[in-house]
Amino acid sequence: MSIARKILLVVLDGISDRPTEGKTPLQSADAPNLDRIASLGINGIMDPIAPGIRPGSDVAHLALLGYDPYEVYTGRGPLEAAGVGIHLKEGDIAFRCNFATMKDGIIVDRRAGRIRDTMELTRAVQDGVQLDGEFIFERSTGHRAVLVLRGAGLSPYVSDSDPKHEGMPSKTIEALKSEAQKTADILKEFVIQSDNLLKKHPVNAERIKVGKAPANTILVRGAGMMPNIRTFSERYGLKGAIIAETGVVIGIGRICGLKHGEVGGVDSDIDAKVRSAIDALKDHEFVLLNVKGADEASHDGNVEKKIKFITRVDKALKPILELKDTLVVVTADHSTPVSVRDHSADPVPVTIMGPGVRVDAVRVYDEINAATGGLNRIRAIYLMPILMDLVNRTKKFGA
Amino acid sequence: MSIARKILLVVLDGISDRPTEGKTPLQSADAPNLDRIASLGINGIMDPIAPGIRPGSDVAHLALLGYDPYEVYTGRGPLEAAGVGIHLKEGDIAFRCNFATMKDGIIVDRRAGRIRDTMELTRAVQDGVQLDGEFIFERSTGHRAVLVLRGAGLSPYVSDSDPKHEGMPSKTIEALKSEAQKTADILKEFVIQSDNLLKKHPVNAERIKVGKAPANTILVRGAGMMPNIRTFSERYGLKGAIIAETGVVIGIGRICGLKHGEVGGVDSDIDAKVRSAIDALKDHEFVLLNVKGADEASHDGNVEKKIKFITRVDKALKPILELKDTLVVVTADHSTPVSVRDHSADPVPVTIMGPGVRVDAVRVYDEINAATGGLNRIRAIYLMPILMDLVNRTKKFGA
Repeated sequence: MSIARKILLVVLDGISDRPTEGKTPLQSADAPNLDRIASLGINGIMDPIAPGIRPGSDVAHLALLGYDPYEVYTGRGPLEAAGVGIHLKEGDIAFRCNFATMKDGIIVDRRAGRIRDTMELTRAVQDGVQLDGEFIFERSTGHRAVLVLRGAGLSPYVSDSDPKHEGMPSKTIEALKSEAQKTADILKEFVIQSDNLLKKHPVNAERIKVGKAPANTILVRGAGMMPNIRTFSERYGLKGAIIAETGVVIGIGRICGLKHGEVGGVDSDIDAKVRSAIDALKDHEFVLLNVKGADEASHDGNVEKKIKFITRVDKALKPILELKDTLVVVTADHSTPVSVRDHSADPVPVTIMGPGVRVDAVRVYDEINAATGGLNRIRAIYLMPILMDLVNRTKKFGA
Repeated sequence: MSIARKILLVVLDGISDRPTEGKTPLQSADAPNLDRIASLGINGIMDPIAPGIRPGSDVAHLALLGYDPYEVYTGRGPLEAAGVGIHLKEGDIAFRCNFATMKDGIIVDRRAGRIRDTMELTRAVQDGVQLDGEFIFERSTGHRAVLVLRGAGLSPYVSDSDPKHEGMPSKTIEALKSEAQKTADILKEFVIQSDNLLKKHPVNAERIKVGKAPANTILVRGAGMMPNIRTFSERYGLKGAIIAETGVVIGIGRICGLKHGEVGGVDSDIDAKVRSAIDALKDHEFVLLNVKGADEASHDGNVEKKIKFITRVDKALKPILELKDTLVVVTADHSTPVSVRDHSADPVPVTIMGPGVRVDAVRVYDEINAATGGLNRIRAIYLMPILMDLVNRTKKFGA
């Protein structure tokens, strides 16, 4: 068949890099399957947002799905909230929260001794705090939680209370625009009331008794407003799924109406994730597979670990070479150079393999060869339109 | 060191060209140092503004510094005024002026016999003209001068009086938008009063006596409003300097708050300019080095002169190969094809050499090879963001 019907978008999180000692990890790693995909496809480099713009994973994934982050993104909160399963409404303001430890007004532990069971504390806050308007407080993994404020006249333009570093007091919450004064007041009230509840809570009395840091305050950050976005299926007419393990990526999937596919194995089992993605393609026309691992190695500054991971992921990707009637895209959400230990703005390699693509002369999957390919340099926001055209689902502009 | 700390931006003014007899001047010239820089760096082609937009040196340099000319540029005047050292305020309207010779209402010499000493005439105008509002009239080199109108409610949308060609009367100054009527009226009044003063001035009586063209009128052109721009250091957090000899480039540097570095030698001594740039890097994190010469050869339509100049500039650039911890960018502000004798919209070659860059397969510095490099095709406005990311000074968008 000369026109693909389905799309598998493989996002190798942070795999893109800069050279260290002359070679990038992708150049150093032995990756015959990635090279095979590059050989069979059209290649290019892709700016997650725009040249020189250093992206977070959140905005990068929004762009990969064709949503312009400059239109829909005001902060990370809503994506995290969706990630823990809260069904957000348009206009909701969501925050990322940490249970933390405060002593004499100073944040001495931003993770409250890496507390794990926050169920009782979360319930105490949800049941005990009384605000001017509705709110949802939900725990996430470990010391993490999310707060959602709901009601008319709210704004995401409020500052964080999280000082980001320990040994400092929490920051005063402020309205960053005058329209946000009401939101700032509600948020301050939430912090005061929840602190009072947590201070006296038996769970914390017990933690102190056994020498653990009490979770006696909540730090908030990442305010964002739930945007009004058309779901993936409304927008593209495709039934979509997402295979991912990171909360924020799952959250983006939920906000865009993608089904969160079950990963049939432990987190570190890339083979199982690839199998899940291939399975999901049976009853979905679009699957985004996010593979973590490379990004962590880069944040650790460990080039050997990153090269080893690439070899592993390459092996795991072998089955996707067998897919029929499917466009396979292999790319990254952003570069995470080992030398930087954080995201950078460098473009990422992108390959599209499948029916109809103009196969170019690129034979190796890496950042340098990709730049010589047939796609040249594109922005991530253009990827979905290009794929939609290759599956013959675009509307004609003009006649 | 894996991350550069400093940036040297070398602008080879107008060096980019089109082929004549199959080769561009860069292709014809022997330039081993430029080739070495290309070999060690990442290469690409760059549109000074956008494809097909033919830029002046002024807007091209603004774009190279990351300022969008469509936002900050209304005309050349403010850049020239800053170039002669006038400290402009936001909202000032500035003009380029010529002392010229008028006879029976006709401009017979646009440069008043290439008059050199205009000090007394300038003072007579500044002291004698009375306008509705403040103004500054300052001489520049030769027959050139600048006029700055200051006050509320001024507009840059007024037409030139300069007819651009001799043998014609000066043009009637008109408001190009209704909001500019006040400005047009003030400007007309300036021309009337200054013409009256100049006509009777002893310097002109003396010039006529010795057979020289009198500087008996002032032609105005290039109206522009001083924009509200954040200085380079506010914007990028970098201490910057500019090594240049052209008034308008120096003016752009001043407007952007770059220190104008002394050139340690005569204008034609490129070695001295390169030394000054390298010196300036000792206490600045960013240095723009503008090298004139190629542009003049092109305006003269002299391909041999241009090739010879490229060989000279290549030799002079040798020391920059020794710089440590520094991103070296070699590019042009615009193409100036010898065949056109003026600027063209063709993209310019750009190379970034230094720690962290993805070195590509390009081995020769010219317009054709550059297009095969790892940067692909970018717009000049993206250059600074890309460089800021390579020195690890970008803010993350998203989280």
